[in-house]
Amino acid sequence: MSKWLEESIEPGFRASYKLDKILASTTSEFQHVDLVDIEPFGRSLVIDGLLQSCRCDEFVYHECLVHPAMLMHPNPKTVYIGGGGEGSTAREVLRHKSVEKCVMVDIDKDVVQFCKDHLDENAEAFADKRLDLVISCAKAYLEQNDTKFDVIIMDLDDPLEGGPCYQLYSTEFYTFLKSKLNPGGIIVTQSGQSGIKQHTLVFTPIHNTLKSVFPNTVPYNQAIYSFLDEWGWNVALPEGAKPPAKFSPEEVDKLIEERISGELKFMDGCSWQGIWALSKVHRKSLAAETVVMSVNNKNHRFMCNPGIATIAEENAKRQKTA
Amino acid sequence: MSKWLEESIEPGFRASYKLDKILASTTSEFQHVDLVDIEPFGRSLVIDGLLQSCRCDEFVYHECLVHPAMLMHPNPKTVYIGGGGEGSTAREVLRHKSVEKCVMVDIDKDVVQFCKDHLDENAEAFADKRLDLVISCAKAYLEQNDTKFDVIIMDLDDPLEGGPCYQLYSTEFYTFLKSKLNPGGIIVTQSGQSGIKQHTLVFTPIHNTLKSVFPNTVPYNQAIYSFLDEWGWNVALPEGAKPPAKFSPEEVDKLIEERISGELKFMDGCSWQGIWALSKVHRKSLAAETVVMSVNNKNHRFMCNPGIATIAEENAKRQKTA
Amino acid sequence: MSKWLEESIEPGFRASYKLDKILASTTSEFQHVDLVDIEPFGRSLVIDGLLQSCRCDEFVYHECLVHPAMLMHPNPKTVYIGGGGEGSTAREVLRHKSVEKCVMVDIDKDVVQFCKDHLDENAEAFADKRLDLVISCAKAYLEQNDTKFDVIIMDLDDPLEGGPCYQLYSTEFYTFLKSKLNPGGIIVTQSGQSGIKQHTLVFTPIHNTLKSVFPNTVPYNQAIYSFLDEWGWNVALPEGAKPPAKFSPEEVDKLIEERISGELKFMDGCSWQGIWALSKVHRKSLAAETVVMSVNNKNHRFMCNPGIATIAEENAKRQKTA
Amino acid sequence: MSKWLEESIEPGFRASYKLDKILASTTSEFQHVDLVDIEPFGRSLVIDGLLQSCRCDEFVYHECLVHPAMLMHPNPKTVYIGGGGEGSTAREVLRHKSVEKCVMVDIDKDVVQFCKDHLDENAEAFADKRLDLVISCAKAYLEQNDTKFDVIIMDLDDPLEGGPCYQLYSTEFYTFLKSKLNPGGIIVTQSGQSGIKQHTLVFTPIHNTLKSVFPNTVPYNQAIYSFLDEWGWNVALPEGAKPPAKFSPEEVDKLIEERISGELKFMDGCSWQGIWALSKVHRKSLAAETVVMSVNNKNHRFMCNPGIATIAEENAKRQKTA
Repeated sequence: MSKWLEESIEPGFRASYKLDKILASTTSEFQHVDLVDIEPFGRSLVIDGLLQSCRCDEFVYHECLVHPAMLMHPNPKTVYIGGGGEGSTAREVLRHKSVEKCVMVDIDKDVVQFCKDHLDENAEAFADKRLDLVISCAKAYLEQNDTKFDVIIMDLDDPLEGGPCYQLYSTEFYTFLKSKLNPGGIIVTQSGQSGIKQHTLVFTPIHNTLKSVFPNTVPYNQAIYSFLDEWGWNVALPEGAKPPAKFSPEEVDKLIEERISGELKFMDGCSWQGIWALSKVHRKSLAAETVVMSVNNKNHRFMCNPGIATIAEENAKRQKTA
Repeated sequence: MSKWLEESIEPGFRASYKLDKILASTTSEFQHVDLVDIEPFGRSLVIDGLLQSCRCDEFVYHECLVHPAMLMHPNPKTVYIGGGGEGSTAREVLRHKSVEKCVMVDIDKDVVQFCKDHLDENAEAFADKRLDLVISCAKAYLEQNDTKFDVIIMDLDDPLEGGPCYQLYSTEFYTFLKSKLNPGGIIVTQSGQSGIKQHTLVFTPIHNTLKSVFPNTVPYNQAIYSFLDEWGWNVALPEGAKPPAKFSPEEVDKLIEERISGELKFMDGCSWQGIWALSKVHRKSLAAETVVMSVNNKNHRFMCNPGIATIAEENAKRQKTA
Repeated sequence: MSKWLEESIEPGFRASYKLDKILASTTSEFQHVDLVDIEPFGRSLVIDGLLQSCRCDEFVYHECLVHPAMLMHPNPKTVYIGGGGEGSTAREVLRHKSVEKCVMVDIDKDVVQFCKDHLDENAEAFADKRLDLVISCAKAYLEQNDTKFDVIIMDLDDPLEGGPCYQLYSTEFYTFLKSKLNPGGIIVTQSGQSGIKQHTLVFTPIHNTLKSVFPNTVPYNQAIYSFLDEWGWNVALPEGAKPPAKFSPEEVDKLIEERISGELKFMDGCSWQGIWALSKVHRKSLAAETVVMSVNNKNHRFMCNPGIATIAEENAKRQKTA
Repeated sequence: MSKWLEESIEPGFRASYKLDKILASTTSEFQHVDLVDIEPFGRSLVIDGLLQSCRCDEFVYHECLVHPAMLMHPNPKTVYIGGGGEGSTAREVLRHKSVEKCVMVDIDKDVVQFCKDHLDENAEAFADKRLDLVISCAKAYLEQNDTKFDVIIMDLDDPLEGGPCYQLYSTEFYTFLKSKLNPGGIIVTQSGQSGIKQHTLVFTPIHNTLKSVFPNTVPYNQAIYSFLDEWGWNVALPEGAKPPAKFSPEEVDKLIEERISGELKFMDGCSWQGIWALSKVHRKSLAAETVVMSVNNKNHRFMCNPGIATIAEENAKRQKTA
């Protein structure tokens, strides 16, 4: 008798991981969370049926999400994180010595508390005085506060059909975000699976949508073993900014040495060269992409978000009837 | 009732692919081969329990194996392929207009025949007059023939414990191969899984072993979706050759345009930049690797090859008792 | 890499059988059929996603279906089999020396041909001159012919939602069947899973429905390993007939010896005692069952049959769009 | 992402149960125990990789194990249970009004405590003053105490290769047990899988071994859904005792009514008829069985027990190195 975690990667493709132990579990208003030990990837966080991050390689994802945007900004003092409840994104942001304030806004207080309680690797970040941790909707917070930011990092679930995050990937939201950036500010967003088969699901649409508001949007990607695919991000740079691929390995290594505390595990000048070098297949798909995600267009391959409030209501209903 | 192909990726990690159809199967003296349709990856060749290549992305593997070595050689006329029975490696080699002769030596005549019969995408290559297809041991052929080559491509199974290919990854074999290269010749070998967790299994040992004979050996890698990981190769360049990462995108694109017939799907000047940019993690492991695989050292983490003859004998025995 | 057949036994319960070989496959107008070798059960027939019969224990099912009804009839000369395309039911019927004519009516000519071609164990039965094999709807044949029978054996798929066989388990059909029985005639029908958890799905409703027309209906069951559960049947006896459980082992053994050619593998006087001894749990459920399946009542837990013609049409449509 | 419990039923046959929740787990000196909720069978106890008992049908196993021996004894006052740590066997024993003392000896104090803590259905039994719960080796206790018993119930793991229970199924142990029976005493032992394919693994050898000491040993079996097979037991009756199959349903029902408190769920006069009616296949195998398990014969298909002490030592070692 053995225990297994089974993940449906795509139709007709299942991955099964031997489940050594369920260390802790909780069900919040929005999601179900498990902290588990699985044989191939070690300690792992599973949120609502998604292998969210595994100790064996979560640093690849988080270093790729955070450091390019941070290093390309000349002096990032204020940073906004939308989502990121796990704490690892904040951890990487707070390594930057220039950072004076990092506002992290996650909607799920139970998940945040769960991660605070159980993820030792992020304990220091959660305790950092520069971190302003807010439980709220990532959009509502920005609407209700006047603060502007040097770097905005969107670390949310994919904009999938009916999912709660769809509107936070829309052209309308990106237009709004523009007003929340300090001059010279940079936005980066996680952008889903980006391997040779799946990169048109959300990676190219997110790219095209962000680009509709920020013409100097640059896509990048990196293989992540525990995600069983490459993963993608898109960074919106100020117009006229130096293209990321033009940073030499030496320049990047120098920036890291000057501006980041401690040692990065994944990112350095050479790793940097790799993430911007998208393949011919990817570049063709990016060039061909026409979808601009909007809260108004309900006819394309994503369903529009019924609103976060609605999701919470539905969850509440489900819990009552369960 | 559904049919599934199940692959054990590593201990405690299984991948299962919905099996739509088994189109053809054969058992040779050495291996069992199936041509199958699986839901996530389409038409796929399964050789002895390994998902050998899937129509959805086999071109990524084969373009990465073949074109860097071929393009970095100034004028490759004669090419040797060790293994490669499937025919896709030869297909990519024969796209190079400079090639006058391509000798492909595979030990398994039944598998080669099976691929000739069933893989339409390689029919043209198998029919190409420049191809000299030989059924033999990859090493024995070279020993018995005086020919030297401009480019040698080793496309063999991983050097795993007790596997038939171990000695073809040894420092002794690489020393022998050196005598089979024309001046300025280049050797490339597939080098197994190369993702953040598995790259020290065979990728770094192969690198270190090839480098023990060819000091200018350069490792590279690329994510391959259907292999569920990044994949690695090592190319041994002449001393003093220009480092691959120094070829600009424009240079590579120009070489491809001038020297290759038809259009590549994966490789171009920009894809090229990505494959050489190994991450900090990989470079640390490569630097720390001390294993040099030898037919004499039986105490490291690979078992020495009992010889291809032995394998065939064992298979014969197994078939008798089955 | 291994191949597996996976069966969904009930929600949250999957059985997986190692698939050694697919020996033959065909897709008929109605169904998809595979003849496979699976490691635990050997040679097996899979019809439309159901493990139909396995060489290791198909005789248990077929001996239980056929012999009780046949042995309790004083002198069965004419037998009707509804369904049974595999041929094993006919094989068991034709062992009875008294049988002069066995009409077997199966709707699927391709499946029948497939079984004729591939199931050696039934070759003799298919060649028996007493067998009248008809390709037709089991009901239509009876409507179009005047023949009456001594024993009627219904060997059909379960009456599941939307399935083609629903109406052949209805009170209307059983009333019609009554008119097709010679005096003293007996009807038996397979009646689905009958274990402690699943016996109320179809076993007790079929019992209650058959009993609505034939008051002397007796349920019985037997564990069948390859079905992963007990299996059930219901036999409708003439009023006043001796209860099956009152046959002593010796009586049954004598009947078998006198009336059956060759040796049975499963059934004998002692096995007979076991099949009628339903547990307290089963008898409670049978007593509590109120459903009478009717072609008119669409509100109970089975969906009415849209008609065999409709099914065939739908299959045809599916094939066109595939 | 879903969680599954996977059980290897036999080579090439896996059953997977959707794992809703792990309610509690513990690792004792001897075994690992989980209390889980699985979708098909509900609350279930998993001991060392064996689905030990499921709330949906554990009563079938335990009523079959306990009541036949108890009801065939004219007046069972003292009962010995070897193993049975879960408490369900004691629960069924203590329903018998005649019982004055039930000694239950299980080696694993942690598992017993775990069951006391978590299995509500056995709370009353654990609290019953007639129960004498002893933590010890089932054999050692009997050696160290002079008490004799009316009924001895062996509820142990199968006598599998290297398992801790092998010697408790040996002819030597049964000879010893004989000396622990009061005149007219009865012994019953669980006897493993007993379906058409697996019944010769341990069921027929246990029968033959018990019979080597007690000539009037009667085998019986019953399908148990959550065990995915029939299950077997063997009861050793005094010489000349009335054969179980000769008890009429009415007699059994009367005995149950007179002697048992509360209502049984599975066993009654009619269920009783079924369990003794072994099929022709089973009876042939029983007649052909020649194995007599002995602590001395190490050459048959079971490996001799290295001794419970050894097992515990090995577990301790494993824990240290883990």
